[in-house]
Amino acid sequence: MKASDYARIERYMQSCMADSAHDKEHIYRVLYTALDIAGQESGVNLDILITACLLHDIGRQEQFENPRLCHAAAGAEKARAFLLESGFSSDFAGEVAACIRSHRYRADNPCRSIEAKVLFDADKIDVSGALGIARSLLYIGQVGEPLYSFRENGEILDGTDAGAPSFFREYKFKLETLYTHFFTRRGAEIACQRQQTAKTFYEDMLKEATESYRMKAKLWGEILE
Amino acid sequence: MKASDYARIERYMQSCMADSAHDKEHIYRVLYTALDIAGQESGVNLDILITACLLHDIGRQEQFENPRLCHAAAGAEKARAFLLESGFSSDFAGEVAACIRSHRYRADNPCRSIEAKVLFDADKIDVSGALGIARSLLYIGQVGEPLYSFRENGEILDGTDAGAPSFFREYKFKLETLYTHFFTRRGAEIACQRQQTAKTFYEDMLKEATESYRMKAKLWGEILE
Repeated sequence: MKASDYARIERYMQSCMADSAHDKEHIYRVLYTALDIAGQESGVNLDILITACLLHDIGRQEQFENPRLCHAAAGAEKARAFLLESGFSSDFAGEVAACIRSHRYRADNPCRSIEAKVLFDADKIDVSGALGIARSLLYIGQVGEPLYSFRENGEILDGTDAGAPSFFREYKFKLETLYTHFFTRRGAEIACQRQQTAKTFYEDMLKEATESYRMKAKLWGEILE
Repeated sequence: MKASDYARIERYMQSCMADSAHDKEHIYRVLYTALDIAGQESGVNLDILITACLLHDIGRQEQFENPRLCHAAAGAEKARAFLLESGFSSDFAGEVAACIRSHRYRADNPCRSIEAKVLFDADKIDVSGALGIARSLLYIGQVGEPLYSFRENGEILDGTDAGAPSFFREYKFKLETLYTHFFTRRGAEIACQRQQTAKTFYEDMLKEATESYRMKAKLWGEILE
C-alpha cells in the first residue's frame, strides 16, 4: 500500500472517531498488534489487513445512536462505500468489509479469511490484560455504571450472577472468558502473557471491596443505638 | 448515635450525591474503613467520626460546578448548616465541619483531631490499591481523558513528565505517592497491603501499551511504499 493511501484511510477513520481520544489509540494498538500476528502467519494480504484494522470500528457511532444496530455490520458497509468512492477495487472493498463484519463474534458471521482472523485476534487482545481492564473501566465511567452491585442481604456480588450491569459483571461475562478462543498461535500467546494481570486485579479488587464493608455489621450491631 | 440520627444524616448525604451510583459506595467504604481504624485508636468520638465520614464529600457538586471552590471547604460549611438545622449542637457541628475541611490535604488546613486524622486516612485508603486504580479510571472515562499521551517522537509518556492529563499521569502524580503519609498505624497497614496491586497494574499496562506500538516502526519502515 502506498503511504498516501494509508494516510487517506487513516484520515477517514479519524473523522469517524473524532469524539474520543482513547478510541483512536485502540485502533492503532489493534493495527500494530495485527502486524505482529501477521508476521507469523503465511499468505496474509497486508493491504486488506491494514485497511480492515484502521476501519474496523467506524460503525461505533451508529451503534451508540441505535443500540439495535451492530457496529460491525454498520462499519462494514461504511467501509465498503468509502473505499469504492476512493477508487479502490470492488474486490478489495469486499474483502475489507468481510473482515470488519466478522470482527465481532457472531455465530452467523464467522471469520473466513486469514486477514479476518488476524483482525479478530488483534481486537480481542486489546480487551485482555491491564489494557482490557482499563478500557472497560473507562467505558463504565462514561456510561455511569457502578463497580459492583449487591445481593439483597448486602453482600457484594462477584459478577457471576446475572445482576445489574457493573464492572465485576463485565469482567466475569466478557474479560475473564476471552483467553481460550483465538484463531492464531501468536494471538493466543500475547493474550496469555496478559491474562494473569487481569485476573489478579479483579481478585484483589473483590477482596478490597469485601474488606471495606467488613465493619458494616459492627456499625449496626454494636455502635448505633 | 441513634439509628434515626444516622438515617437522617445518611439521607442528606444521598440527596447530595444522587447523580452517581459509585460515589455513594465510596462514602460507605470510607465510613466502614474509618471504623476499622478507629478500633485501634483511643479517644475517638464515634458520633463525630461517623457523621464526618457520611458528609465528607457533599461539597463535590459545588467544586464540579466551580473548580475554584474546594469541595472540602464547601462541604464543611454545608455540613455545619445541615447539622445546626437538624438540631445538633454547635460544638458537634463545628467538630464535624473541621474534620471535613481538613480531609483533603492542604498545608493551611492540617488535621487537628483524632477523628479528622481517621477520616483522612480512610479516605486515602480508597485511592489505594485496585479500588484506587478503578476509581481513577472511572473518573478519566467520565471526563474523556486518555489512558496515556505521547512524546513528540511517538514514544508513550510514562506519566512522570508534566504532560497532558492522562491515567498514567494521574497514577504517577497521585496514586503512586500516597502510601507514605498516613496518620494512623492501621491506615498505613491497610494501604500497604494494597500497594503492590496498584504498582503491578500500572507497570503491566505500561508494558502492554509499549509492546502494542512496537510494530509501528515496521509499518512505516518496511510495509508502506
